[in-house]
Amino acid sequence: MDNVMGANEELAAKNKAAFKEADVVAVNVMGSPGSGKTTILENALGPLSEKYKLGVIEGDLFTTRDAERIEAVGAEVYQINTGGSCHLNAAMVNEAVKEFPIDDYDVLFIENVGNLVCPASFDLGETLRVTVFSVSEGADKAVKYPKMFRRAHAVIINKVDLLDHTDVDLDEVRKDLREITPKASIFEVSATTGEGLEDWIDWLQEQLVKLQ
Amino acid sequence: MDNVMGANEELAAKNKAAFKEADVVAVNVMGSPGSGKTTILENALGPLSEKYKLGVIEGDLFTTRDAERIEAVGAEVYQINTGGSCHLNAAMVNEAVKEFPIDDYDVLFIENVGNLVCPASFDLGETLRVTVFSVSEGADKAVKYPKMFRRAHAVIINKVDLLDHTDVDLDEVRKDLREITPKASIFEVSATTGEGLEDWIDWLQEQLVKLQ
Repeated sequence: MDNVMGANEELAAKNKAAFKEADVVAVNVMGSPGSGKTTILENALGPLSEKYKLGVIEGDLFTTRDAERIEAVGAEVYQINTGGSCHLNAAMVNEAVKEFPIDDYDVLFIENVGNLVCPASFDLGETLRVTVFSVSEGADKAVKYPKMFRRAHAVIINKVDLLDHTDVDLDEVRKDLREITPKASIFEVSATTGEGLEDWIDWLQEQLVKLQ
Repeated sequence: MDNVMGANEELAAKNKAAFKEADVVAVNVMGSPGSGKTTILENALGPLSEKYKLGVIEGDLFTTRDAERIEAVGAEVYQINTGGSCHLNAAMVNEAVKEFPIDDYDVLFIENVGNLVCPASFDLGETLRVTVFSVSEGADKAVKYPKMFRRAHAVIINKVDLLDHTDVDLDEVRKDLREITPKASIFEVSATTGEGLEDWIDWLQEQLVKLQ
């Protein structure tokens, strides 16, 4: 396992250097199956494309469903099918980057496989990490799956439109997140109603200004 | 990896033999983080305990939160903390079984780590596999994560009380499930309101009669 992780770190460093060279900000978007990663991207691509050139890498076990959704909103997509593997790794992204014109992009979104465990252990060389979880998953996810939250630059709490139909106390969620990932920016959104999406898109634009 | 899987298969066979010897039906409960596995167990334990002696193994990365919830409803629990690993394996269950009086039980529930990918690849020696997913995860989960559904004896579609607040079409979900896992029994439940829980508990009791 140490060899696997060592090889991944090496390729992640190469990816990081390639992203820097291409002057592109790579955003690794992670979260449970059905947490809303694709819907959040669908909604962010429109406003961001007014100012920035965007590319998207879609990681899925087998299907191209998410890639089709992203293409439908007019973005360029590279599909990685992991063939059953539970996470993207740096080698997969390295291959994708060779065939993808990252020099043309300002932002490269990388949507990871839906999984709150494994993707947290595999650095892709990304610039920013965004963890999405939905209130319908319950209040205890950050405490139960801390690694996924600990290294996040931003945590998006999605599906707040469903809050009244759950027993989730957002104060408790915020308190847990503050302990587990004190530096992360936290956004409360509904990708369905659009509530709060502007705040996280603004945050992302601020990061782009800082980083470029 | 082949060695890892081979060693797991060997221990899974040992577990299977031990469950048979102890005349206990082992039920591997799998699904995404927040799909409702623990709540479904909490609700099943009461009715089942009137007729059967029950034990529960709780698999979590680090915490004991789910085990505490199960203990609170009066069941005996053995906690496995995987230390970050994304699934239970047969060796962990083998250790648990040594310290757990399975001879006393009719049913041993094994709640796996919240993950729609990895647990599907690791046989624990279980008698029955139950996959839980919630409508708030979206309609496409069975298609996107087929392995988790293909070998399931039962699929529980949870959180149907939230259906009106999602764009999920249950007919589409049922159709996909029929293609991916034609033999599985499918239940539509709300672990929160109790709707449909009786049907899956009845199904489980039928299986126990058949198997014992």
